[in-house]
Amino acid sequence: MFQECLEEVRKKKPLVHNITNYVTVNDCANILLACKASPIMADDVEEVEEITAICSGLNLNIGTLNQRTIQAMKLAGKKAGQLGHPILLDPVGAGASALRTRTARELLEDLKISAVRGNSSEIKTLALGTGATRGVDADISDRITEDSLEKAAAFAKAFSKKTGAVIAITGAIDIVADEEKAFCIFNGHPMMSSITGTGCQLSAMMTAYICANPDRRTEAAAAAVAAMGVCGEKAYESLTVQDGNTAYRSRIIDQVFHLTGEELEKRAKYKLL
Amino acid sequence: MFQECLEEVRKKKPLVHNITNYVTVNDCANILLACKASPIMADDVEEVEEITAICSGLNLNIGTLNQRTIQAMKLAGKKAGQLGHPILLDPVGAGASALRTRTARELLEDLKISAVRGNSSEIKTLALGTGATRGVDADISDRITEDSLEKAAAFAKAFSKKTGAVIAITGAIDIVADEEKAFCIFNGHPMMSSITGTGCQLSAMMTAYICANPDRRTEAAAAAVAAMGVCGEKAYESLTVQDGNTAYRSRIIDQVFHLTGEELEKRAKYKLL
Amino acid sequence: MFQECLEEVRKKKPLVHNITNYVTVNDCANILLACKASPIMADDVEEVEEITAICSGLNLNIGTLNQRTIQAMKLAGKKAGQLGHPILLDPVGAGASALRTRTARELLEDLKISAVRGNSSEIKTLALGTGATRGVDADISDRITEDSLEKAAAFAKAFSKKTGAVIAITGAIDIVADEEKAFCIFNGHPMMSSITGTGCQLSAMMTAYICANPDRRTEAAAAAVAAMGVCGEKAYESLTVQDGNTAYRSRIIDQVFHLTGEELEKRAKYKLL
Repeated sequence: MFQECLEEVRKKKPLVHNITNYVTVNDCANILLACKASPIMADDVEEVEEITAICSGLNLNIGTLNQRTIQAMKLAGKKAGQLGHPILLDPVGAGASALRTRTARELLEDLKISAVRGNSSEIKTLALGTGATRGVDADISDRITEDSLEKAAAFAKAFSKKTGAVIAITGAIDIVADEEKAFCIFNGHPMMSSITGTGCQLSAMMTAYICANPDRRTEAAAAAVAAMGVCGEKAYESLTVQDGNTAYRSRIIDQVFHLTGEELEKRAKYKLL
Repeated sequence: MFQECLEEVRKKKPLVHNITNYVTVNDCANILLACKASPIMADDVEEVEEITAICSGLNLNIGTLNQRTIQAMKLAGKKAGQLGHPILLDPVGAGASALRTRTARELLEDLKISAVRGNSSEIKTLALGTGATRGVDADISDRITEDSLEKAAAFAKAFSKKTGAVIAITGAIDIVADEEKAFCIFNGHPMMSSITGTGCQLSAMMTAYICANPDRRTEAAAAAVAAMGVCGEKAYESLTVQDGNTAYRSRIIDQVFHLTGEELEKRAKYKLL
Repeated sequence: MFQECLEEVRKKKPLVHNITNYVTVNDCANILLACKASPIMADDVEEVEEITAICSGLNLNIGTLNQRTIQAMKLAGKKAGQLGHPILLDPVGAGASALRTRTARELLEDLKISAVRGNSSEIKTLALGTGATRGVDADISDRITEDSLEKAAAFAKAFSKKTGAVIAITGAIDIVADEEKAFCIFNGHPMMSSITGTGCQLSAMMTAYICANPDRRTEAAAAAVAAMGVCGEKAYESLTVQDGNTAYRSRIIDQVFHLTGEELEKRAKYKLL
């Protein structure tokens, strides 16, 4: 099923509207192109409604939010909701400042959010107001391990039930849940945390996957998470001794460029809870 | 003649002022350095006139325009015009929103634009108000093919006559025209469309070529287009099986770094119409 | 001693708040991760005080300053000063516009700046108001050579005495001075000037080094400069004939990722004046 999700992206080539941070925006554009989707970035309040209307979905990322772009996110999100476009929220750094926490919550409450993707601290902050966000990284106390997996899956399902959104919590182990089921995904490599923006990139790609698979958005989100993890593994295997985190960054996107549905299906490691 | 155009850039090392989008800005800076020009990015209204005054030319790119940067573009453009500096306009996404279409037209009408570079949909939108822009990519109905080449060249010449600017329409086949002649350039590789910002990069590089060759700006613009295409070909030839779109992105800029005037002259494929 | 400075960064993994330009911001984030620090970028006035409070230090870079981010720099800087966090100022392009010169001076005067890193023209502008800044590059007349080294070191020491900040002037030869001593560092490679943002990257990394070594900030700043230079040398040695400035950019950060304290100590070339 992950195979079909990936193949639909390649077939439909969805155009994704991104209002995202200026740190990792280039990587987000290139990973969308790598999976055969198309990116457009636009954040002026005068145009965001029009831009989002010509797209298939909207990726909202608060990584370097400001008063101007928060307004743009709200306007674009309202329009995308009216048009029935999927909207993904990446609450970067929720918990690190009141502005981030409040903005992430307002976007989640006021818009028809289809999916939320964040690390465990960000998602806990959104759900409970108590994540221990360390800047834009998850605090170690929030991390999901084999031992806490069942509890984390139940938490994600409950948060999905409450919000109506697919909840993707990514880290060493990833959880993608709707109210009935949770994919626990074991792909990926620890070195992915040494690159800025793998989370942002995944959010952009996940938006494309959901756009192309409107009738199975949980599976599509899980497929995107597995695809990122598989590409992280394959890219790691391709590193030479001199390669460091920037080579790794490029290699991951390059693996996304080449990844086939068949390989994704074969290498994806997950269980349902 | 393309050879001389390239060599003048290496000799004069023009300083180019860029007011451009935050998606591809790093690549624009690096490609300017690769061709031995120097970049400066500055977009605050309080400083853009001063900054543009110490530069040789101005590259205006509306890829992530906003109210603040539109003002900066107008101020910088007015100053650059007074000083006789070449100004290039890259109307990214013209046709995708009213703001983009209107801004691109205002810049073209109000400033002394030396060159416009865009895809076929963007240029059609500017000239006729009727391009079928799909986000920031050209719509397939607008694409230039061997069959539509003569018509497209005539259109570009007419638009150049009307505006006084060199018109560069880039795609599978590129056209660079002034009112009397059109270079039809056949270099490049389809994979270039799988990278974000090859167009933006070309606009930055074209500005440098025009700065360094003030007495033959059409030839200089054509030389920049051919250089980008040749580097796209050479970079493609250098790819390994694992390389994808991000490796390709870096390889193209690296080829620009090494490209000699002699090799450009030898590999450029074009005809005049 | 450089060895210990590097190792402290790897051990303490300082979280660095960056208010920096949108041209090189991704490279700044990745080089911080490469040296095992963590980056956070945040520039909205409503959150910068809170964000800086959870960090260990603050990196202020005026590369694409605007009215909004200048305010954010001032607020964040005031808060960081109250908390005793080190603040680094990178006065990109000081001398190229009145706004840059004035802003850099105001930040230096109003905040408790721990270190300033710039090229010779930028630092001269800050100290004397007379640098010959060519855009964001040092003017050749300002460059430090073997002949002018003693004079430059004395100038840096005097400026450090006046400001209380460590003064880092980087170029072909680098000087890192406090009021009593100046490290003159001879590492690096000329090709580093063909990449955008090696200076910005160094400023980000230097902030992390100072955060992790609060009791020897001059040595820490010098260690960061030497580390960047050594990585520039090692990356150059690793280049293939097809590699250009973008490959070189990635290779330098990858070398930072792998650099050990032992190797830094062994390869660092400097003398004290």
